[in-house]
Order: sequence, then structure tokens, then C-alpha cells
Amino acid sequence: MTTLKMGGAAAVAAVLVGSCILLAQNGQRIAAAPTDAGQVEELVLANHMLTMNGVLDAYGHVSVRSQANPNHFFLARHIPAGVVTKADIIEYDFDSKPVDGNTATGYSERFIHGEIYRARPDVMAVVHCHPPDVVAFSVSGIPLRPLTHMAGFLEGPLPVFEIRDAGGMTDMLIRDGKLGRALAKTLGDRPAALLRGHGAVVIGPSLHIVAGRSYYMMVNAKVQRDAMLMGGGKVIYMEPEEARKAASQDGYERAWSLWKQQLAGK
Amino acid sequence: MTTLKMGGAAAVAAVLVGSCILLAQNGQRIAAAPTDAGQVEELVLANHMLTMNGVLDAYGHVSVRSQANPNHFFLARHIPAGVVTKADIIEYDFDSKPVDGNTATGYSERFIHGEIYRARPDVMAVVHCHPPDVVAFSVSGIPLRPLTHMAGFLEGPLPVFEIRDAGGMTDMLIRDGKLGRALAKTLGDRPAALLRGHGAVVIGPSLHIVAGRSYYMMVNAKVQRDAMLMGGGKVIYMEPEEARKAASQDGYERAWSLWKQQLAGK
Amino acid sequence: MTTLKMGGAAAVAAVLVGSCILLAQNGQRIAAAPTDAGQVEELVLANHMLTMNGVLDAYGHVSVRSQANPNHFFLARHIPAGVVTKADIIEYDFDSKPVDGNTATGYSERFIHGEIYRARPDVMAVVHCHPPDVVAFSVSGIPLRPLTHMAGFLEGPLPVFEIRDAGGMTDMLIRDGKLGRALAKTLGDRPAALLRGHGAVVIGPSLHIVAGRSYYMMVNAKVQRDAMLMGGGKVIYMEPEEARKAASQDGYERAWSLWKQQLAGK
Amino acid sequence: MTTLKMGGAAAVAAVLVGSCILLAQNGQRIAAAPTDAGQVEELVLANHMLTMNGVLDAYGHVSVRSQANPNHFFLARHIPAGVVTKADIIEYDFDSKPVDGNTATGYSERFIHGEIYRARPDVMAVVHCHPPDVVAFSVSGIPLRPLTHMAGFLEGPLPVFEIRDAGGMTDMLIRDGKLGRALAKTLGDRPAALLRGHGAVVIGPSLHIVAGRSYYMMVNAKVQRDAMLMGGGKVIYMEPEEARKAASQDGYERAWSLWKQQLAGK
Repeated sequence: MTTLKMGGAAAVAAVLVGSCILLAQNGQRIAAAPTDAGQVEELVLANHMLTMNGVLDAYGHVSVRSQANPNHFFLARHIPAGVVTKADIIEYDFDSKPVDGNTATGYSERFIHGEIYRARPDVMAVVHCHPPDVVAFSVSGIPLRPLTHMAGFLEGPLPVFEIRDAGGMTDMLIRDGKLGRALAKTLGDRPAALLRGHGAVVIGPSLHIVAGRSYYMMVNAKVQRDAMLMGGGKVIYMEPEEARKAASQDGYERAWSLWKQQLAGK
Repeated sequence: MTTLKMGGAAAVAAVLVGSCILLAQNGQRIAAAPTDAGQVEELVLANHMLTMNGVLDAYGHVSVRSQANPNHFFLARHIPAGVVTKADIIEYDFDSKPVDGNTATGYSERFIHGEIYRARPDVMAVVHCHPPDVVAFSVSGIPLRPLTHMAGFLEGPLPVFEIRDAGGMTDMLIRDGKLGRALAKTLGDRPAALLRGHGAVVIGPSLHIVAGRSYYMMVNAKVQRDAMLMGGGKVIYMEPEEARKAASQDGYERAWSLWKQQLAGK
Repeated sequence: MTTLKMGGAAAVAAVLVGSCILLAQNGQRIAAAPTDAGQVEELVLANHMLTMNGVLDAYGHVSVRSQANPNHFFLARHIPAGVVTKADIIEYDFDSKPVDGNTATGYSERFIHGEIYRARPDVMAVVHCHPPDVVAFSVSGIPLRPLTHMAGFLEGPLPVFEIRDAGGMTDMLIRDGKLGRALAKTLGDRPAALLRGHGAVVIGPSLHIVAGRSYYMMVNAKVQRDAMLMGGGKVIYMEPEEARKAASQDGYERAWSLWKQQLAGK
Repeated sequence: MTTLKMGGAAAVAAVLVGSCILLAQNGQRIAAAPTDAGQVEELVLANHMLTMNGVLDAYGHVSVRSQANPNHFFLARHIPAGVVTKADIIEYDFDSKPVDGNTATGYSERFIHGEIYRARPDVMAVVHCHPPDVVAFSVSGIPLRPLTHMAGFLEGPLPVFEIRDAGGMTDMLIRDGKLGRALAKTLGDRPAALLRGHGAVVIGPSLHIVAGRSYYMMVNAKVQRDAMLMGGGKVIYMEPEEARKAASQDGYERAWSLWKQQLAGK
């Protein structure tokens, strides 16, 4: 896994091409408009750090809403998050269709992102992940609830999306807008939802926050599981007011800073 | 662990020698016929990535059926999967005997592979592994069952091979064709089987698929264990139709791609 | 992560500047007085090794009391422990205010350190950490107790700080002196205390000892959890006399030595 | 962590000095007689690979009986196993006293080794380790038993050494010959014993075997714990005859080979 560093001449060149259409090494047009370049760089970092931390496996993904056009969002083409580069980022509309004729294959579950951005104007970033510690809750009948101070954002027991209700017998994937809308409905105004036997979606008001949230949701799941196994019914959860007050944290900026520097040191 | 990269002149040389007998650094003849060279390279990668991911310890192995001769298969000599090179690959027949007079010592359990390829013409690749999370199921009386979307291929509760039934009191290893045939019989037409107190076999229609399957079987085992411990009898498993529909995935191509690039970055 | 090594000429230079004000790369004054330089170097190491060992995440911190002025202590500014350098260390008083006009932002929970140093003249170093294995105890109703020979220092069941008692509904953080004093009161004369749904504080008579203690408290938590889950009520804890006799160990010098060399080898 | 490789001229030099007293970089005499040089090199490797694999923490140790003098054994001075070099190896007698006037401080628990070598002429190598998965059994009232094919050497439920019986209230360490003899008595003719709230001793007929045994005892502990938690009373253990037949394995040569190459690749 490599990081994106430029020094000297390369940095100058990057400034000069600021208003041009960039061509990636493989000749694909880079979807991001120049004004979105910073967002795309950060999105690449988020892909790498969430892989490094075990939040994303080869199949998870993370997206960010375009600041230049709030009806669009950025998401990598269908490659593992751990190896995404700027040239792999596609700009999509709410129907999860590329907006600039980009013909690269997209993730089959990109509809998760499009439908959540459509339904939730407050959402600026979305993670879809499959960490085993979290998935265990989705099939256990036990609600995942905030009980650690970094996961107050969860607010209360998370909803679980049962794809059978929306699609009957499926391959478990959110392959179209209809399933995406059903998932967005289960999510409602909440910060996250589990997908039964599959994973989770986590949303946030920024890329840094959604990265921190998805990591600490995983930590909270480990703590809740172990506390339940040891303590049975006596587990102490956060009070709603505690969760609400703890929710904003520092925008998870310190976590982002650590992970960014750990990537750079690799 | 090093990977197999060739650039420029080396690549040309590789083409030129395409019809020759290759000599490995240690002087052993490379068993693979020229037309099998691509398969052997991929097999080396599979050995390395399954070690990197904790699927294979020093004693597990992975094989692939020869495309040039479907009655033959490729499997490393008796060294750890993590350090296998092309020169270590042996071509075997269904009796698990080397077909070209290769005198290198083979894995004592190579009969697992030979007998499964003989019994199952649909099988193109076989993994034999011992991940602790999976082995725990083999001695627990609890069937390993698919409940995560990446492991639908498991179809339903996996059979468990009890070597006492086939061989009485043994050293637990599949040391001959008789035990290999008994194991193949327990496997039947299923995608995987557990070996009591020992490990698992996983089969597939390609090397990429068997690599992905053996990894996600391990993930499924972790999730099932934790869900059972938390949720008791209320665990939600995949319906047979869900498992069947989710089984093919993307041929686990995205996982293979990630692991290959992670190896190259080491 | 890089370590702080100096050889030859650099070492000489370091001696020569021993009585000067050092300027860090970013132009910030280094808070440590020259006589405290050794303490600050060790504190940077402690930050790095506790991150390497999973004791500190992006949000934990570690401090040491100043040898030159026992009413002061050293603690990093509000950056992740894993990336702290000498230039990031601030000298604080018991009110957790910088003593030299350092204007860098401090950790919001620096009051943990100030109030413990004020209340406990015997304490020379403090760790505040959030390892999931430990946090699980804080919400389980099960007291964390010493049952492994490296954690005898725990003495007996650890107190748990319930922030609701001191502050009602909060964001769970020790954001001021009042909460810091309440925590110090819960800690009393003990070597550690848990913070419900949050983490732990560990104190010690030296930086090396507090590093070893916080690591082996985490190990003890894993062992206690697993033993309880397997053995139910039959778990064997250390007798108070055993714990007392085992408490001092070797000052955890051998652990510090290993971790320091592992950092240097990175 | 670096490994000990010599090529070309260095190898020749090593042969030439074969009959001389070697001086280590720090000027300490190397305790090993020339004929023991190979044993000492292997012992250094064992120290490193057992640290790499999580068998040894900063405080565990591994020894080997001298081939030149069966009344002596080799063990590192009191530094972490992970950073041991040839110059750190001391030659001891059964009273755990250095035989050549070596004045380096030894491990306080070196008596474990001396008394086991004295009591068990068949033992050629000893590991003393503290892996949490194993220690949990020592305080749980649940006997650790072989149920995985790589751990048949365990034979049956392992004895647990209760230091209270031999020494009353102690600091839990085997600090003298009396405690060492009591431990050796609990070990009896078995391959391993647990020390309550502390760790384990594992013995074997060679260094390679004791390395493999201590690693796979740890794996067996994980599997047994998880199987017990899932399956309750229905766990299937190895029959004594199976354990006996599986015990010898390949002398764990393939595991040693993997770990040695992984160290070299670091």
C-alpha cells in the first residue's frame, strides 16, 4: 500500500494542471472536477486507513458527497479499498450512475450510497463495511448499543436491515435502487444500521467523522460482546443524554491524524 | 516472502524459454509443462496469500488441477506454503504420485488432493487448512453453517470427517489413498468439510475461488461463534435459497486482487 | 514511527546545547528545562511503545512528573501518542495549565494527570488508556482483579469511577479539575482505576513501571475474561499476599528494554 | 530483529576460529565451547521465533541442553528473548550456576531449567512461557487437553503447578532450586505443565520440537476454549492412542523452517 506524496517539481505541476482534465496512468479520465481534488485525495486516504484498521475488507467501500455539486458523490470503481488511487474515483449521481460517461465498472452495491445521499441531505460521507465483530450482532438478536465513550454517536440500539422484508430471497447484496431505498428507510435519521448477515452502513457529516465512527463502532461491538458474556444482564449502557453529549467528540480529527501518519510511514 | 516479478529482459527471456525444460536454482526440474506455467505462478501466489491471511500455517497446503491434463494436479513439495517457489511445485496423478519422476518429498497428506480430484471432476482447486476458529467447530458438536453473505457457498451445515470411522485410532493425518477416499466420500458433493480435531478441506472451480472461500469460511466461523455465544438459540442463519444465490459472488476476484497487491507491496 | 537516536557528532552537539533553549522543527519552544531533557526523551518513547502495544489508541495519553520541579508534570499536546516528538511535550502545573506560556492546545482530559499528581505525591507517572479488553470490565459489573503474576500490582478488585456520581449526565470526559479530583478520590491510594464505559488510569513510581503496568493490566483482563467464561465461579485469583509480593517485579525494566529495541528496529 | 547470516569470507573466518575463544562485540566471553556453537546459534533463533509468534513475551525464556556436556545447559542472560544474541548465552550447570565464571545476571527463574534437566535426562530443551490463552486455563479449573492434531504430544490433561503447595505465599516466581524441584516433580514424566496464574513449561527432545510444541499448545488452548464455550460438555478430545500416535509429528521441522525464513525476511 503506497501513499500519495508529491514533492518539488511534482507539486508545482499539480498546481499548474489545477484547471485541466487530469489523465491517470491508465488513461482513464479522472472524474473529479478540479475543485473536488482535495475531496478525492482525502477519499483515497480514507480507503487506505479503513483497510489498515480492519474496518474494510476487500469488499467494503467509502464515499463522500461532492462539495461542488451536492447531488453528486465520489466512490471508487470496483477495486479493493486498500489499493484505490485518485484515478479510480468515479463521480456519481443519486441514481448511482456515473455523471461524466466514466465507463469503469462500479461496485454492485453503489446504490447504498446514492440512496442514502438522496434521502439524507445532512449526510456528507458513507461507509459500508463488514467487520466480523459487528456482523455478529446482526445475526444474534442482540442490539448493538453505545456503551463506550467514543461511540456515543450510535445514540441507542441500532436498527437492523432485514433484506428478506424488502427483497425476499436474495444474494444479500444491495444491487439496485429499490433495495438501496429500503435500506435508507431502515436507516432513517440514525447514524448507522446493521445489515443482517452482511455488515453495516455508517454515515456522517464529514469523511473524517465517518472514518472515526466506523472504527469506534467496531471497538464498541467488541466491548459490548465481552461485557455481555461476562456480565449477563448487568451490562451498563450509556444513557441517551450521555450518548448525545459524547457524540461529537473532536470530529475524530486526532484519529484521522494518527492513521494518516501511520500510512505515510509505511 | 518475495513475489515473482519480471520486467524487461527477464520477461523476454521467460517467453523464449517457454518451450524448454526450466531448471530451478536448486537444479530440480520444474514439473510444470510450459502450458501450465501460468497455473504454477498463480499457485505460488495462492500459497503466499493464504499464509499472509492466517488461513495456512506451516502445515496447510493448496493445489490446482492441471488444465493441460485434468488427471493431474499441482502441489508444492513438503515445505511451508509461505515459502513455496515455482521450483517447489510437483505435478501429481490421482494416486498422488509424481508424474515426471520428481523425487522431492511430498506432503504426507497429498492424498487429500488426489482423491478429491478423482472423485470430483468439477473441482479445480483444493485447500487443506487448520485455522483455529474453524477447528473449534470440528470438536464442538456445533455445525458450521453459513450466516454471512461472503460464505453462502457453504450451502448449509458442513459435514465433519471422523477419522475414527475410517481408520480407527490414527495419528489424525490422511496418510494414504484409503483415508483420502473416505474423506472424499464425507465431502460428497459439498464445497467443504471439517476434519475433527484437525482442520478443513475447501474445494472450488478455480484457484481464486478456493482462496476466497477458505478465507471467508474462517470469517464466517468467527461470526457464528460470537453470535452463538451472545444470542444463544436465536441466531439467524442464511436460508438455503439465500446461500445458493450468494454463493458465486464475484469469484472472489476482488479479494484475490487485494491480496496479490499486498504481497507485491511487502 | 521513528525513534530518537543520536550518534557521534549529534550526541556531542546535544551535550553542547544542554543549557540552551531548544527550538523544534516547527518553531515551538520545547517546554522541558534542560535538566528534564532525559525525562522528555523517555516520555516520547513511552508514548510510542504504548501505541505499538495497543495500550494507547489515538486518544490515550501518558505523563511523567518533573524531577526538577515535583509540582509540575510533562504531557504531550493534543496529538496522538503514536506521533509525539520532543517538541510536542508541554510542562504543566497541578491545575493542568502550561507553566511557560506554551500556547499549544492540550488534551481536554489533562486534568486526570494534574489532579492525580496533586493528590498522590508518590505518583511519578500516569497513563490514561482505553484498551477494549479492559473497558469491557468497566461496564460488566465484574471487578477486574489480579490473577496473573505480572499484574500483582493491581492488589485486588479495582475501583470503577462512575462519572454520573460526580458530574451527572456528561460527555464522559474528565474535562475539568472538579471531575479530575473526583476521579483521584475514586483512585484513592490504589494503583489503577477503571472509568465506566471509557477506560482506565494507571499510576506508578516511574515511567517504566507505569508502562509495564498498563500493558500487563490489559493482559490480566484477557486472562480473567477467558478464565471466567470457561470456569465460571471456580476462577483462582491471587491471594492479597501473593499480589503484594509479586507487585514490584523488576520494575518492568525487561519489558521496557524489549519495546525500546523493537521501536528502534522499525 | 536481525538474524545471524554469514556468507563467503565470514563463513570461512567462522570455520577458522572454530577452536578459539570467541569474543562478542561487548567483550564478554561467549560461554559456548566451540563444539556447541551450532547449538547456540539455534538457541538464538528459537528466542527470536518464539517472540515473533507470541509464545514468549519480554519475560519468557528457552534453553537447550549442551551436547558436549549433558550436565550443562545454555540459556540467555536476563534480557528479553526477542533481542538475544550469541554473546548473551550463558552455560549453566544443574544448580543453575554459570560454569565459566560468567558474571552476567541470569534470569531469576533459571532454576526451572536446571531442575528439569537434572530430573529428566530425556529432556534436551525447555521453554518457559506466559501466553494469555494458556494462562487462562491455569486459573480456570479446566484442564488443558489435546484436541488438535498438532498438540497430541500433550498426551492428556496437563498437571497444574500450585506454588502455594510448595512455597506458601510467594511472588509466584520459581526463584530457587527448591521451587524448581517442586515444579519438576509436578511435571513428572509429562511433556508440559501449567503454573497457576503464571504460565507454562514445555519440554522436548530437541530445540525444534520444543519450539513447535509451545506454539501448538497455544493454538490448542484457543481451540479448546472456543469449543468449550460453544459446545459445553460435548467437546471431543483426542483419544489417548490418537494423541500418542500424533505426538511425534515431523519433529515440527516444517514449522521451524517457516519461522526461520520469516525471521530472515524481516
